[in-house]
Amino acid sequence: MRAAVTRIGRLEVAEVEEPVPGAGQVLVRTLACGICGSDLHAAEDLRRFADLTARAGGMFGLDPERGVIMGHEFCAEVLEHGPDTEGRIPPGAAVCSVPVVIGPAGPEGVGYSNRFPGGLAERMVLQEALLLPVPHGLTPEVAALTEPLAVGEHAVALAGLRGDEACLVVGCGPVGLSVIVALKARSHGPVVAADFSPARRRLAELLGADEVLDPAATSPYARWGDLGVPARPMERAALEMLGGPIREAVVFEAVGAPGVLQAIIDGAPARARVVVVGVCMSTDHIEPFFAVTKELQVRFSFGYSREEFAAVLERLGRGELDASPLVTDVVDLEGVPAAFTALRSPGQLGKVLVRH
Amino acid sequence: MRAAVTRIGRLEVAEVEEPVPGAGQVLVRTLACGICGSDLHAAEDLRRFADLTARAGGMFGLDPERGVIMGHEFCAEVLEHGPDTEGRIPPGAAVCSVPVVIGPAGPEGVGYSNRFPGGLAERMVLQEALLLPVPHGLTPEVAALTEPLAVGEHAVALAGLRGDEACLVVGCGPVGLSVIVALKARSHGPVVAADFSPARRRLAELLGADEVLDPAATSPYARWGDLGVPARPMERAALEMLGGPIREAVVFEAVGAPGVLQAIIDGAPARARVVVVGVCMSTDHIEPFFAVTKELQVRFSFGYSREEFAAVLERLGRGELDASPLVTDVVDLEGVPAAFTALRSPGQLGKVLVRH
Repeated sequence: MRAAVTRIGRLEVAEVEEPVPGAGQVLVRTLACGICGSDLHAAEDLRRFADLTARAGGMFGLDPERGVIMGHEFCAEVLEHGPDTEGRIPPGAAVCSVPVVIGPAGPEGVGYSNRFPGGLAERMVLQEALLLPVPHGLTPEVAALTEPLAVGEHAVALAGLRGDEACLVVGCGPVGLSVIVALKARSHGPVVAADFSPARRRLAELLGADEVLDPAATSPYARWGDLGVPARPMERAALEMLGGPIREAVVFEAVGAPGVLQAIIDGAPARARVVVVGVCMSTDHIEPFFAVTKELQVRFSFGYSREEFAAVLERLGRGELDASPLVTDVVDLEGVPAAFTALRSPGQLGKVLVRH
Repeated sequence: MRAAVTRIGRLEVAEVEEPVPGAGQVLVRTLACGICGSDLHAAEDLRRFADLTARAGGMFGLDPERGVIMGHEFCAEVLEHGPDTEGRIPPGAAVCSVPVVIGPAGPEGVGYSNRFPGGLAERMVLQEALLLPVPHGLTPEVAALTEPLAVGEHAVALAGLRGDEACLVVGCGPVGLSVIVALKARSHGPVVAADFSPARRRLAELLGADEVLDPAATSPYARWGDLGVPARPMERAALEMLGGPIREAVVFEAVGAPGVLQAIIDGAPARARVVVVGVCMSTDHIEPFFAVTKELQVRFSFGYSREEFAAVLERLGRGELDASPLVTDVVDLEGVPAAFTALRSPGQLGKVLVRH
């Protein structure tokens, strides 16, 4: 079969071996698969990515010398059941799955495994027990958004919203946009979104952000007063003494680049909750003194639970989430290397999907 | 009166003007006052300290050119009531207070104000409304510990302990020790404490730490398995799937020096809560990727509420907290400059108190 194979220093579409379903596994045909920011990190420096994930507790057990077929945001069609399966979902049915499959050495991440190809291959093997049928009427393109939307859903769940918190989403790439979708799915507001790219600000608006800002023109951190949030510790302490209701703030870091966390520490109001959902793979610098005096809470968010993933797919099926504007570009498998190149300067792009 | 005056580049004991109580204020004679890590930062570089606190929302409004009489951990004796006071606490009575006084321009921090001398002066003015009588039988030395103990109390409150979390206290200076006191006051265990100094480890033991570690010999981050805490994300995820109880971990950063937060990010188990109570006044480096993959929660803690301060004083009075081992050195006012010098290499020292 054909697949986009990432090796050290190159990404190319090539003929690779067909995957064979093992016990409890199902052979599927990939229908659509999104390209994720982590895929870009991995393609840029596969050795470093493998080192970091190994240091992070051996998440994937990825050997960079062996190459990898990425793609963990997929929708697929059941082709054939392997041994020891129940045949719960018939061939021809469309499915999604959290990108995990049980290999001989334990769980492996589909898309970051040397053994199991991800959704940038024509076919994959998935774990039958983890398959979720795609609700009737949902296109593969939208169903493939389940995974990135679950990332936003999880980040918003970790924010522990309790009322009318003012939410600021810093960065409107696919991660920030998925946070906006999850916030607006809860009818939460106000949601302020900031991005340097006009195209991405437009996407944030389409997905429901109440206000979008260009940080080059207006600091998103100059808006707390207008939003009714006491910004300075002394101001907040005075309000607390009066005992009245206080509007809290939640800031989502959805960029994942060095310097952004410190900008948030500098700009967040006293006692803000910060949810870090952008994945910064470099060393970053912060000035803890300001986080201390503001008593910030920083929650680092990663992935999602199976329940959150399933809930997002179900809500997509019921039409409760309209996330289709997220997809700005669809390419075929042969177009993957060019798409990765384009995504190095992603200002115009939302989610780029590969349609098989 | 005599006072230890901090100016740019020097700290000296000198004659200064007597403070005069304004409306709602009380003149007091300082009985005892602790020296705090923040005082050391301020004495080391008063301009930088003033700049940082100004950037942090003008906490103190401190003009470094005018000099400051520090000391915010005090016990004092009421001398004389100023205008517009109620005379609630009679002259001769011992009092504590949160270190705040209302100046003409609003609240100022006693000990970090150009206008109001702190507890390193023979006399101070305090706000009558904030005075708390020292319970009968409590020595000024122990009552002066209320403030640093309230810092530990607040940090432990922010940790949101829910059950049998394994607690690791990194650093056993006065801040770490006050965290240990607050944990043991709740009968919480196990509490593991780590410090390079044998003297400070001994203090941690005296104050109730269940286990003390020398990080030069044993990594405190190698103990999670023995403490029953699943350390790796995968290990934790497997336990979650089984649905059994999971022992959580809370790590208290009580050093406040660059590099410690990243050591904790590296060494903490998956989903740990990190409470940063050490005040790092330098730029620090972290690797967010590992905080992300572990989904750490980092809560920055600062100060305490008036209620927490009052509760600590009351518990000290009832003999429910035995914090006296915290005090390792008592000096007189003339000994303050030498004490500041000694505290630059604090390995042997716990809390240093000035007894007037």
